Amino acid sequence: MDERLPSWRASNAKSAILDFVDRVTRKRGPDFVPPEDRIATFDNDGTLWCERPLQPQFYFAKQRLEAFGHADPALQARYPFKAFFDHDIDKIKELGKQGVLEVVVAVHAGVTADKFDAIAGKWLREATNPKLGKRFVDLVYKPQLELLDLLRDNEFRCFIVSGGGMDVIRGFSEEAYGIPRENVIGSSGKTTLEERYGRFEIVKQAQLGSFDDREVKPQNIYLHIGRRPILAFGNSDGDLAMLRYTLTGGGPALGLLLHHDDAEREFAYDREFILSPLADALDNADNYGLTLVSMKDDWEVVFPG
Amino acid sequence: MDERLPSWRASNAKSAILDFVDRVTRKRGPDFVPPEDRIATFDNDGTLWCERPLQPQFYFAKQRLEAFGHADPALQARYPFKAFFDHDIDKIKELGKQGVLEVVVAVHAGVTADKFDAIAGKWLREATNPKLGKRFVDLVYKPQLELLDLLRDNEFRCFIVSGGGMDVIRGFSEEAYGIPRENVIGSSGKTTLEERYGRFEIVKQAQLGSFDDREVKPQNIYLHIGRRPILAFGNSDGDLAMLRYTLTGGGPALGLLLHHDDAEREFAYDREFILSPLADALDNADNYGLTLVSMKDDWEVVFPG
Repeated sequence: MDERLPSWRASNAKSAILDFVDRVTRKRGPDFVPPEDRIATFDNDGTLWCERPLQPQFYFAKQRLEAFGHADPALQARYPFKAFFDHDIDKIKELGKQGVLEVVVAVHAGVTADKFDAIAGKWLREATNPKLGKRFVDLVYKPQLELLDLLRDNEFRCFIVSGGGMDVIRGFSEEAYGIPRENVIGSSGKTTLEERYGRFEIVKQAQLGSFDDREVKPQNIYLHIGRRPILAFGNSDGDLAMLRYTLTGGGPALGLLLHHDDAEREFAYDREFILSPLADALDNADNYGLTLVSMKDDWEVVFPG
Repeated sequence: MDERLPSWRASNAKSAILDFVDRVTRKRGPDFVPPEDRIATFDNDGTLWCERPLQPQFYFAKQRLEAFGHADPALQARYPFKAFFDHDIDKIKELGKQGVLEVVVAVHAGVTADKFDAIAGKWLREATNPKLGKRFVDLVYKPQLELLDLLRDNEFRCFIVSGGGMDVIRGFSEEAYGIPRENVIGSSGKTTLEERYGRFEIVKQAQLGSFDDREVKPQNIYLHIGRRPILAFGNSDGDLAMLRYTLTGGGPALGLLLHHDDAEREFAYDREFILSPLADALDNADNYGLTLVSMKDDWEVVFPG
């Protein structure tokens, strides 16, 4: 019996992964891919860690706004900040991922990168998912940790490509996933370089630099990695472009889409809109060559511990 | 006798490097730096390969313009393109690095990333330095290849941070320096994602995205790596900000500046202007904690073979 990926149940999805890894690493085989080209990219929210009831960055924005609102009460009366102070979840959801990122970026203008690291690190050590009652950093998916290990054992280089704020993810990616900071691509704000007290500092600015979502993901993969991935894993509207970019490269490729259909152990949700990239992906998986992964059926275990 | 860095002469510069590597890797020593923080950044033009009589990207721009000018004669009459067709070196130099990059970016609008890779690869295999009569890719500095190896042997991760076009450097960085494509940071143009004949393609646009020079180098280091380097190596106006960013991090750090003072084996040149970052670096090396490397005195060999 194959002992690899123990938290994955024997299924089509697991076979597709193991078969792919075997094919691209078999020397003199027809699908051999040299190690330098073995690039794997993973979405983060909902692919490597839990993103419900809201993506963790929503809670980060909320906590940061509360800290700033205390210092500047005028902020509390101004939209979009007001939505957070009013705990108006519908209004917050309306902002969308980009709107929430813009809030995070706006309230950190003038903060140095080193200081932001400390802020994000503290939040990550403490912040808890309100529904599941565990820390966000403990709600990473065990089957994915095994997949990352399997890929690295086979000389893949694994990257995160997330719509979430890059700097926050870098604060836990090494410890949680074994993915070094430089292998994290994500949304980012603009910066400047300033000399403060004899020290050169990266200083955050109020403007969003890159919202790393949808068609921007392949563009940022090109900017940061300079190679088309041969394996990509996503779960949402934001990931279809990355998956199809990976699958249309012309060589061997694997595109995986995690389907959140497990109301028991996690959450059950998928297409929020009839016309959306995720609906497109689910409806046309075969056409696009996508491999669907069912959390309910394909994963023996969801979370570690 | 220390057998490391054989192409480096016994000198202050060599001792500074070996001493630094020993200190940061000595477990339980006061200057120990854990492997995850061992980031080294190198400028490319004039630091890892020869940049005289003109930086190789000037010749790349010239060759590409000639190819495009043939297809579109109207281009030949228009400045700044005209300067290249007239072989007007003074006018070309006036454009500066950024101007030349803008020309390269402009003429490749609409070209896919994969096609550009092929174009750059062909040029790199053939293009020759007109003064030294060797291919540009053979005019890399042997002492630097040894230094990159030494650092990697000591669990450093080495990056290029160049004002030159990122995509061109990625075409030879793995073969020439052992630096993977994703560890190359440089100037870059804007892109779009387009579906062409069922294939998702990154397509180059006419606008410069990032001119990776001077104070932008630390900003791009933050964007791409997310850590402050502990070793940086440069040679020109474009590198002082990166060197000082490295040296003011608060922990152990080494900042190296290559001085081109070897008219015999390479070229002798330094400050072109009295007021310039390079003049500042040379005049204030001690203040800034910079280690000067003399090509003439500190290198036993310059080029391989």
